[in-house]
Amino acid sequence: MTIESGNPPAGLIERQAELEAALKALIADRPLPLYRMMGYHMGWAETTGEARIATTPARVHGGLALVTSELLGGDYKAAMPHACAVEYLYNHVLIHDDIRDGNSERDGRASVWWSWGPAQAINTGDGMHALARLALFGARNHGVSSDSIAEATRVLDEANLDTCEGQYRDITLQERLDVGVDEYLSMSESQTGALFACAVHLGALASGNATDEVITALDLFGRKLGATIRIADDCDLFWPAGERDETRQGRLVAKKKTLPVTYVIESGTPTERRQIGEIYMNRVIDPTSATALTEVLAAAGALEFSKGTIARLLDEAVSVLESARLPVGAIDGLREVARFLATPGGLASADLAMGESIITEEA
Amino acid sequence: MTIESGNPPAGLIERQAELEAALKALIADRPLPLYRMMGYHMGWAETTGEARIATTPARVHGGLALVTSELLGGDYKAAMPHACAVEYLYNHVLIHDDIRDGNSERDGRASVWWSWGPAQAINTGDGMHALARLALFGARNHGVSSDSIAEATRVLDEANLDTCEGQYRDITLQERLDVGVDEYLSMSESQTGALFACAVHLGALASGNATDEVITALDLFGRKLGATIRIADDCDLFWPAGERDETRQGRLVAKKKTLPVTYVIESGTPTERRQIGEIYMNRVIDPTSATALTEVLAAAGALEFSKGTIARLLDEAVSVLESARLPVGAIDGLREVARFLATPGGLASADLAMGESIITEEA
Repeated sequence: MTIESGNPPAGLIERQAELEAALKALIADRPLPLYRMMGYHMGWAETTGEARIATTPARVHGGLALVTSELLGGDYKAAMPHACAVEYLYNHVLIHDDIRDGNSERDGRASVWWSWGPAQAINTGDGMHALARLALFGARNHGVSSDSIAEATRVLDEANLDTCEGQYRDITLQERLDVGVDEYLSMSESQTGALFACAVHLGALASGNATDEVITALDLFGRKLGATIRIADDCDLFWPAGERDETRQGRLVAKKKTLPVTYVIESGTPTERRQIGEIYMNRVIDPTSATALTEVLAAAGALEFSKGTIARLLDEAVSVLESARLPVGAIDGLREVARFLATPGGLASADLAMGESIITEEA
Repeated sequence: MTIESGNPPAGLIERQAELEAALKALIADRPLPLYRMMGYHMGWAETTGEARIATTPARVHGGLALVTSELLGGDYKAAMPHACAVEYLYNHVLIHDDIRDGNSERDGRASVWWSWGPAQAINTGDGMHALARLALFGARNHGVSSDSIAEATRVLDEANLDTCEGQYRDITLQERLDVGVDEYLSMSESQTGALFACAVHLGALASGNATDEVITALDLFGRKLGATIRIADDCDLFWPAGERDETRQGRLVAKKKTLPVTYVIESGTPTERRQIGEIYMNRVIDPTSATALTEVLAAAGALEFSKGTIARLLDEAVSVLESARLPVGAIDGLREVARFLATPGGLASADLAMGESIITEEA
């Protein structure tokens, strides 16, 4: 598969406004300022609690759950609680991530811990974690059985634990240089992939039309998709489509592993490896070191290798769906979504396109 | 009700060894060091991962779920997944609490964040949060219906969110002095009480014998019980039964509100209030200030007021059970457990007695 940037698939953006409204509704009646901090993180409020007029980030995990459900012939409305659950779970991870990585900003605004301190931020994340699962119980109103809801909570928790395992490895790899490409990919399939797998898995459950074989295939598809999105994000870190955003460099500053670096460490020339080693000997990777690092990576062909890896993983992901004999329309739809999200800068253009869809529908 | 210290009720300790084994089994087959950190926190391992030979703390929340189930005529084995769930949820809160309060120690050993840093500790707590709910799915092996499991996860998440709300208020009250007794009690019923309510609620669900009226009563009983246990703990902070343990003073150092202080702020003489105000003007409450503070509180009758409040809340808690017409044996059993746990130092003696029970059964 070749990667080409393009417009976001219609399926992914069509339901964004409705998803956003459903997410908002889950905290709308909760007056405690704890929920105001959650609303701030989601982009709906200022720190003062005043409503904020601005486009919010694309809700990719929730959107993916809705798309999957529809592609399998389900009614997307029945999947809305599942979409909210995985979206809030993802945002709980982001709130805690920002503390762990020391990110002062998120989406161009101060992060929750930067605004209210780590104690409140840990707690706000924990509350959102509970809220994520409570969202699932809304499915009762769509006649979803307790069996299916219980299974959905199990899927959510397994994915969450898997994410924590990936997180653990991500933190551990921070201080190591001898990290191979396979180890990096396996970690990414957990840390980033588990929640994408969860999104498509929940969408399939909500559709009511998925066999165990299809669900297993979707899980694997989601894990590989997650890894490709992460690699696309890695590429964006070193070779941004627009101007470099210093507030998004926390992961690099903290020496979190990326595929380009891992590749050159494993396969670079002795000189390239020594150059990278010297940069990583610094306590943190400052902007000057980041520029030097990017030059070494570019010369060693790390961008081409990363794009090649994305293309290979996307092919594998789609093959899995074909082997499980998903309907052709579903395979085509998921391929389109995957190709779009795994484009470096794809998520940023998704933000833009989805924001427009919301503004249009609210107008 | 008068409070008198005594031996822990048999019902609470009898199943501790079995509960401990069930808790261990949930992480036994998980090799990633993430679970080693969880095992360290639970008291089963050294930081190196080596098994640790020592008594572990009383598992009061889990024990309460088992006792409640049995007192309502259920088979405690069917309640074991519920007991594990609430116990792990509680321990997830402790791991995050230690970061928030800056506690370097927990149960006489370095806390998780002190050993592995805040990033790993936030993640370990998140993982234990997911594990808590996954524990519930063990109930499938006891023929518990999906309906009941789905309801149990909902109860767990509502309690968790309630705890986060209490936590939020606890952090907010830290920097305020004008906190009244009622505000303190309401916060405690959420922050500490919600998980005790969850324990008895889950025990009742597992018994399969509880009407909605009984469950509502047990919930309220649990919230009031939680508040009394917290007040007992507050008293233990200022007037410890044995030697003062400096590593357990984190809550005081960080100016978390306690009932004795709240009482004197609200009802003390102008001189007493001024004295407390001066101490709280310090950035933290160091050991010297803590001694001075304790003297002011003692002279103002705060210990008597606190004991009186515990007795009143226990009476109210038991009355609620009587109004809901629980079986007399269940009321007697829960009264005995409540009276024991709400004794200042009661939890410490529970640790001792339950530790002995485990050692006896393992020998």
